[in-house]
Amino acid sequence: MSEEVIHKGLEGVFVTKTSICRVNGEEGRLYYYGYPIEVLEKYSSFEETSYLLLYGHLPNRVELDDFTVKMRKSRKISPPILDMIRSFPRESHPMELLQSSINFLSGYVDHKIEHSAYCNCRQTLHQIAQLPTIIAAFHRIKNGQESIAPRDDLNHGANFLYMLRGVAPDREEGEIMDKCLILHAEHGLNASTFTARVVASSLSTCYCSISAAIGSLYGSLHGGANEKVVSMLKEIDSVNDVRPFLEEASRTRRKIMGMGHRVYKAMDPRAVLMEGYLKTLSAKKGNSVNYNMLKEIQKVFREMMDEKEKAIYPNVDFFSGAVYDLMDIPSSLFTPIFAMARAPGWLSHILEQRQDNRIFRPKALFEGPLDREFIPIENR
Amino acid sequence: MSEEVIHKGLEGVFVTKTSICRVNGEEGRLYYYGYPIEVLEKYSSFEETSYLLLYGHLPNRVELDDFTVKMRKSRKISPPILDMIRSFPRESHPMELLQSSINFLSGYVDHKIEHSAYCNCRQTLHQIAQLPTIIAAFHRIKNGQESIAPRDDLNHGANFLYMLRGVAPDREEGEIMDKCLILHAEHGLNASTFTARVVASSLSTCYCSISAAIGSLYGSLHGGANEKVVSMLKEIDSVNDVRPFLEEASRTRRKIMGMGHRVYKAMDPRAVLMEGYLKTLSAKKGNSVNYNMLKEIQKVFREMMDEKEKAIYPNVDFFSGAVYDLMDIPSSLFTPIFAMARAPGWLSHILEQRQDNRIFRPKALFEGPLDREFIPIENR
Repeated sequence: MSEEVIHKGLEGVFVTKTSICRVNGEEGRLYYYGYPIEVLEKYSSFEETSYLLLYGHLPNRVELDDFTVKMRKSRKISPPILDMIRSFPRESHPMELLQSSINFLSGYVDHKIEHSAYCNCRQTLHQIAQLPTIIAAFHRIKNGQESIAPRDDLNHGANFLYMLRGVAPDREEGEIMDKCLILHAEHGLNASTFTARVVASSLSTCYCSISAAIGSLYGSLHGGANEKVVSMLKEIDSVNDVRPFLEEASRTRRKIMGMGHRVYKAMDPRAVLMEGYLKTLSAKKGNSVNYNMLKEIQKVFREMMDEKEKAIYPNVDFFSGAVYDLMDIPSSLFTPIFAMARAPGWLSHILEQRQDNRIFRPKALFEGPLDREFIPIENR
Repeated sequence: MSEEVIHKGLEGVFVTKTSICRVNGEEGRLYYYGYPIEVLEKYSSFEETSYLLLYGHLPNRVELDDFTVKMRKSRKISPPILDMIRSFPRESHPMELLQSSINFLSGYVDHKIEHSAYCNCRQTLHQIAQLPTIIAAFHRIKNGQESIAPRDDLNHGANFLYMLRGVAPDREEGEIMDKCLILHAEHGLNASTFTARVVASSLSTCYCSISAAIGSLYGSLHGGANEKVVSMLKEIDSVNDVRPFLEEASRTRRKIMGMGHRVYKAMDPRAVLMEGYLKTLSAKKGNSVNYNMLKEIQKVFREMMDEKEKAIYPNVDFFSGAVYDLMDIPSSLFTPIFAMARAPGWLSHILEQRQDNRIFRPKALFEGPLDREFIPIENR
């Protein structure tokens, strides 16, 4: 019995076949349903990518138009949900609100527990479409502002910025935001996506499953790395302080946020693209402070790794926080943005789980005394 | 690569060591922290059992008194939560409200993300103490009644019946309800408890983790079996109809609800105890219709299994629905009762997970085309 192997964190254990995502960590490649992330980023939109993740193929014109109209019409949240957001404790993290609101809004749509693989969660789309509205509304209400109704003439990313600011971003900034969402839409079986599949495996609703996934993403070991990169930049303060900071960090074995990735042994392909947005936005906004610091960190860090004959590259979080920061998005919204971007990926995995389902029930190896004597409380 | 073994549903895979629960399926034994369920049921209370699950040992008199006072003082929900319950869509299942409300109420307590094994979720107790209040309030509000504030002079089970009915149950009925909760407080790594551990593994809060577990329990493959037993009894209608019903079910290979268990190859020890409550309550209420039908089902079913040389025994769900039914609890609350009873078990697993944590990140075996060509939408 005690010879049993314990698979802590399920490292290296295959729990399913999948066609959704392929991460090639050795070569730094990422694919959604077989399409390289660079191709989707260049030619697709978040809406089209969401379609791809839900249906497994790219839509034709009629399919995409139909899907886009439905998704945009689903953006608006109903008054009771807005009331719920208003009454949600202001001090709460927006991730707590997100997790909580999912089931609330599910009360306003017409599908409950789904027992088949062919449920209509592809059609209702509230989980994808309404998350940005909820995030933006909570943020504005917290700051004493009125919430802003979504516009349906803007893409998913641009509309989010509009609802946050009250002013639509220009075309370029709106597209960058949309592309940031594409880059985060899916990434295989991380803890939150696995959570979504575990919950779906009892044939619970897609709302319950996504709510659970949000709860998992909220954990400090999962979401939040880009937030920490930005606070590291604030701490370093200027390009000249980068080298001493890194040397001190090396001495004290302090982790450099945004560097290295469990899966990628080469450059994270999303980091390459994200760096491009940061460069563009820095020039556009006339503010290259963070960009210059990040490039200096990358350079000095590489020198230090070369000395140790190690190769550790920046991941997507290394640049994304600085991108959002230049778009005036407060850092408390970075993980919620991750959640709204990942929603189609979660749904994709829920659908795949349902197609060949078995409820998750692993084993635990019991260690401890048995048949303990119940001593009356007076004698304890 | 395609030689990799896929562990669907993680069947037979050990993911952790545990000291919390031991289910001996061959002999029909169940232990919480080494104490046999029959002993806890006979000598303990739900409150003391909750202490055991949170601390791993039985409390002395001072510890139990202190714990009980804290837990009873935590029962009351604050006005904004009551407002949230009032505005929750009436058509929603109470499990959806429960999942949603957990994060809402976490905004009213003073602990957020916990990174250590020694978090104060043992002290705050809102997850255990407030669930019955939320369930009872939603049920009454749905039915156009005022919600009822908890009483702190009643045990956990009796207080739940009081908040549901507006009248306190007599001592015997209150104790039976409390014992029902003890029997459901913990049962190893089922899907919902595994969900709680997966979410906790990213170092998310215990609220987020329990909310996720509730979402998992809501699935039709997990909670809800006792509800189906009661509706089967309604369908059968009378003792004389049992044999024809079972013969017909055998012909059509219809599953008999409440019979058999994935783990127990002997009698489910909880079913034995639950049958006792049903017998007591049936005599007390002068209504043995369901009890007689269940005993007849058990008898005829055993005859039929003997013919096939199989041994399949009733599980806890076989009797529990009828017990709740005699206590005038509507069947839509059966799974929520399961959730409120299981909360200390979930918390116990969250605490154990944190003591030796690794984030859950299993692998998925990719199967599908790669480097698919992005065809312009006009040509699709």
